Amino acid sequence: MKPEAEKLSRPSVPELDALLGQALPVLDDGFVRLVDYMGNDQSIVQAARVSYGDGTKKVSQDRGLIRYLLRHRHTTPFEMCEIKLHVRVPMDAWRQWIRHRTASVNEVSSRYSIVSDSAQTTGPGQWRMQSSDNKQGSSGFFDEETGAAFTASERDVQAMARKVYEEKVELGVAREQARKDLPLCTYTEAYWKINLHNLLHFLALRMDPHAQKEIRDFATTIGERIVSRWVPLTWEAFLDYRMGATSLTRIEGEILAALGAGSTADAVAVAEQAGWLVADGQGGWKRNREREECEGKLAGFHITAPWLDR
Amino acid sequence: MKPEAEKLSRPSVPELDALLGQALPVLDDGFVRLVDYMGNDQSIVQAARVSYGDGTKKVSQDRGLIRYLLRHRHTTPFEMCEIKLHVRVPMDAWRQWIRHRTASVNEVSSRYSIVSDSAQTTGPGQWRMQSSDNKQGSSGFFDEETGAAFTASERDVQAMARKVYEEKVELGVAREQARKDLPLCTYTEAYWKINLHNLLHFLALRMDPHAQKEIRDFATTIGERIVSRWVPLTWEAFLDYRMGATSLTRIEGEILAALGAGSTADAVAVAEQAGWLVADGQGGWKRNREREECEGKLAGFHITAPWLDR
Amino acid sequence: MKPEAEKLSRPSVPELDALLGQALPVLDDGFVRLVDYMGNDQSIVQAARVSYGDGTKKVSQDRGLIRYLLRHRHTTPFEMCEIKLHVRVPMDAWRQWIRHRTASVNEVSSRYSIVSDSAQTTGPGQWRMQSSDNKQGSSGFFDEETGAAFTASERDVQAMARKVYEEKVELGVAREQARKDLPLCTYTEAYWKINLHNLLHFLALRMDPHAQKEIRDFATTIGERIVSRWVPLTWEAFLDYRMGATSLTRIEGEILAALGAGSTADAVAVAEQAGWLVADGQGGWKRNREREECEGKLAGFHITAPWLDR
Amino acid sequence: MKPEAEKLSRPSVPELDALLGQALPVLDDGFVRLVDYMGNDQSIVQAARVSYGDGTKKVSQDRGLIRYLLRHRHTTPFEMCEIKLHVRVPMDAWRQWIRHRTASVNEVSSRYSIVSDSAQTTGPGQWRMQSSDNKQGSSGFFDEETGAAFTASERDVQAMARKVYEEKVELGVAREQARKDLPLCTYTEAYWKINLHNLLHFLALRMDPHAQKEIRDFATTIGERIVSRWVPLTWEAFLDYRMGATSLTRIEGEILAALGAGSTADAVAVAEQAGWLVADGQGGWKRNREREECEGKLAGFHITAPWLDR
Repeated sequence: MKPEAEKLSRPSVPELDALLGQALPVLDDGFVRLVDYMGNDQSIVQAARVSYGDGTKKVSQDRGLIRYLLRHRHTTPFEMCEIKLHVRVPMDAWRQWIRHRTASVNEVSSRYSIVSDSAQTTGPGQWRMQSSDNKQGSSGFFDEETGAAFTASERDVQAMARKVYEEKVELGVAREQARKDLPLCTYTEAYWKINLHNLLHFLALRMDPHAQKEIRDFATTIGERIVSRWVPLTWEAFLDYRMGATSLTRIEGEILAALGAGSTADAVAVAEQAGWLVADGQGGWKRNREREECEGKLAGFHITAPWLDR
Repeated sequence: MKPEAEKLSRPSVPELDALLGQALPVLDDGFVRLVDYMGNDQSIVQAARVSYGDGTKKVSQDRGLIRYLLRHRHTTPFEMCEIKLHVRVPMDAWRQWIRHRTASVNEVSSRYSIVSDSAQTTGPGQWRMQSSDNKQGSSGFFDEETGAAFTASERDVQAMARKVYEEKVELGVAREQARKDLPLCTYTEAYWKINLHNLLHFLALRMDPHAQKEIRDFATTIGERIVSRWVPLTWEAFLDYRMGATSLTRIEGEILAALGAGSTADAVAVAEQAGWLVADGQGGWKRNREREECEGKLAGFHITAPWLDR
Repeated sequence: MKPEAEKLSRPSVPELDALLGQALPVLDDGFVRLVDYMGNDQSIVQAARVSYGDGTKKVSQDRGLIRYLLRHRHTTPFEMCEIKLHVRVPMDAWRQWIRHRTASVNEVSSRYSIVSDSAQTTGPGQWRMQSSDNKQGSSGFFDEETGAAFTASERDVQAMARKVYEEKVELGVAREQARKDLPLCTYTEAYWKINLHNLLHFLALRMDPHAQKEIRDFATTIGERIVSRWVPLTWEAFLDYRMGATSLTRIEGEILAALGAGSTADAVAVAEQAGWLVADGQGGWKRNREREECEGKLAGFHITAPWLDR
Repeated sequence: MKPEAEKLSRPSVPELDALLGQALPVLDDGFVRLVDYMGNDQSIVQAARVSYGDGTKKVSQDRGLIRYLLRHRHTTPFEMCEIKLHVRVPMDAWRQWIRHRTASVNEVSSRYSIVSDSAQTTGPGQWRMQSSDNKQGSSGFFDEETGAAFTASERDVQAMARKVYEEKVELGVAREQARKDLPLCTYTEAYWKINLHNLLHFLALRMDPHAQKEIRDFATTIGERIVSRWVPLTWEAFLDYRMGATSLTRIEGEILAALGAGSTADAVAVAEQAGWLVADGQGGWKRNREREECEGKLAGFHITAPWLDR
């Protein structure tokens, strides 16, 4: 492969350029703001083609290649694109965010600066109930009347914490120490830079319905408003092969194969061998999370799990 | 959660201790040798339980928890185990190996030392044919007679390269430069240390049938002889949920759901909408890799793709 | 290099084994607790020697080799050791801690569990004053009387935030949401695992006098009580070559060389050329941070900067 | 800090744009070619200022800030710039290159494609002698006559290896296997993408006089021809504070301080306490690498080590 002689210019995406510098609002006082980016769908194709020794030759099957790469988790070409965002986020959501170790980060220092006069507030209709079946999730909302009381007590805590913080700073307490009693939901700001491969991983986890609503709102804004414009072919493939995918375990695959072959008995035998069908002494089976997950996936395919079908 | 008062000792695995220091042979002159390890199945359970605030309390469902973690790709607890190997590998396989950026490596320096007097040799029955349908794979073997000629010419090249290398070193050429004409399959040695999460990722890619046979032999030895003893519960889960898993795309899921609901027509409509069924003008369809992959998965479940079923 | 035939056992450090499981107290209610480790000083030597093709042969110069490696920043052999700690830390110190992206982490989930009934409290004599010359530091303490007022207002904020949190949880607000108004200094717990190379980098930054006192207390406990026992030769070299080192810039080096050659005029000329000596119109020079840093280093060597010497 | 209202465009560097797509030649048939980049000196300043809560306000001291950041190893702002190169490199130099784990890489696959018809050739005047005092380095060149013989034997090995490779491929041997006997110096090509912080670390190691000449040629081309244009303020600071810096150990600092205070005896005592002055029984001292390094640094400052000064 020989490098072409002609002069290049940097890959760009006019649809995305229009977004540069705009603060896309999230939550009551947060935002996501595109600051810079590198590469586009073509850059992914170009990197993949160097692996095949095809250089930069033009073909019309870029979409097919990108879909192939994403479907088969050939991830390195997606590292060739990079994005930089300026975000404003409550610190408790930021704690989840920062657990992704593959990004570059510069955050406002609350040792150096006075902390922003803002904590995330929760309106009367936004208080969520603890989920009963998912110990780390929420489900449903309180009525506005009950919520109004929560909002009021929140307002009091935030106001008191702020007042005490400002008094201390005023009297000369070190900022690094004065901040310690501010609420976890105090807003912070940061530049956050990450490559597309790692960003898709972040989005897959944080756009998931099991992610906490606050960070999900940020992830959804990044995905639907920025990534979808930046790399539209990749975004389409990501929805088809990551967000919309179903993973079948070896056991689930064998059950489906037995059903496909017409043998309900064989399918039940697979489940039995996997230890899924332990009698509970009351005519049913002991609870088994793996079996229940399988039943859920089969139901999604409009198939009744054979052991339920009697 | 309060730390327990009693004294701890380091987690260990007696079955694995028996392997320490043993060179497990791979290829004609390579090996994998366990040097050190940290943690076991219990360490994964312990790390996961800290997340749930359950501390180190004992329960009998360790297997269930490990399977749950691996099935749902809760990967961080698997980072709590670490392994260190001493390996001897041909450099062309090592080039693929070293692409995994998440390991710690100390390799023999051929700038500092005389290169080992050994390149990987290929016997008459081991020469593989270029695959016709997979541009980067092989399929089948040459007969021994043809192979014998390949082996002979290889022997000549290796001998000549070695002779020229040794002459240069003898006459005082810098080792870092003299090595440049040695064969790519010259053996090298290294210490290689990696955590279990990253090791499983390595194994999933390199034990795959599409991986090159040479590195696959190393990966299989590591997986089947070492990891299976080290963390047996994790290994079982890995086989069930990673190696044996089938990933269905959004489109494939919709086709299966249409079939489950009894509507072949709907299933075909999904495929049509995905652009899979473009007439080739001869009564068939144009080749479409995604459609063919779907047909293959359905066949694995003993289901005929509805568009083939006429 | 041929692997030895004899059976190995895992490297261990009896002095460190005695610490396993012990909670070393830090701050008012935090701790650092050694859970597991891998390797010792010998493991570093062994990894370095494989690079030199010297295999596992015994020599008496291990100390010399470790010092050489650390002095010349040959960092990869130090990656061969790994340590796992269980820590209990205020979340605001943890936010600084977690910025080190090279560790493996499992933290208590406050989505899943009720948050520990504990925030870091600050005694009357522990309130620090904002530094006047370092915008992100502190210097000196308030008197106990003034401090007592700060401690009292802190107690009120923490108590109120805790009460509101518990009320919300009691009434069924999702834990992931109820926690949002807790103080930043609420304690969290985590398993934290990192290799020795990255740990030394963490310690160099966080044991530094410019680090915030809270995290410095944790880092100092890890360094002085754990690492010093674990890898004593490495720890000694770390103190000599990292913590106790002075880095001279090109310009500072040239100034020192001019002074060594006996030419004050040349030394001043170097400073002038670097733009350090811009007249302030009042017989002195404009402030220049680089010049002042140089003056500080020279003073450490009992040398008066030549431009001050008139 | 509030995001500005006005529309942004991506940061760019016109001097660098002129280089886009140009292959800068290295060695006999290699090159480095700029494909894309993100950010400039201003991006570093911007990221640092967010930490100080100063937002994007304009000041004239960008140079001072960049120098301060680099001098004090505040590294994260330098991660905000990213560069992508297309390189053509002999595989033995590439093996050293790829050890830097912080880059994104897509390399030509020699499983998929026929390997480029080119290995690095060494001219008669380019053969280097093994260094006598540095076991992993070279020093000086052979005369052209001797070198001509080395070049001739190299030509023979390369031609034979190439011929055998082509025969095997022609007869249908799998490309992944046929390549195994090609020389280590066969050229490969790759896209290589890395952030500026990690690139500077790469350059500091690979532009060093101790790096092998082949990779040093690549590093020097990247540094002097590309980075110097891309981020000129950073490049200047890098030369002053990294490439031109001298690190003094604690012991060396104490010796310098004793000399500065005028006490030769104290300086010698420091050396003695460090174990540097062990009599060799012949009126001198046993060799000690650390002492010799110290003597070298002092000599650089035109200072005679006090123990030599008798």
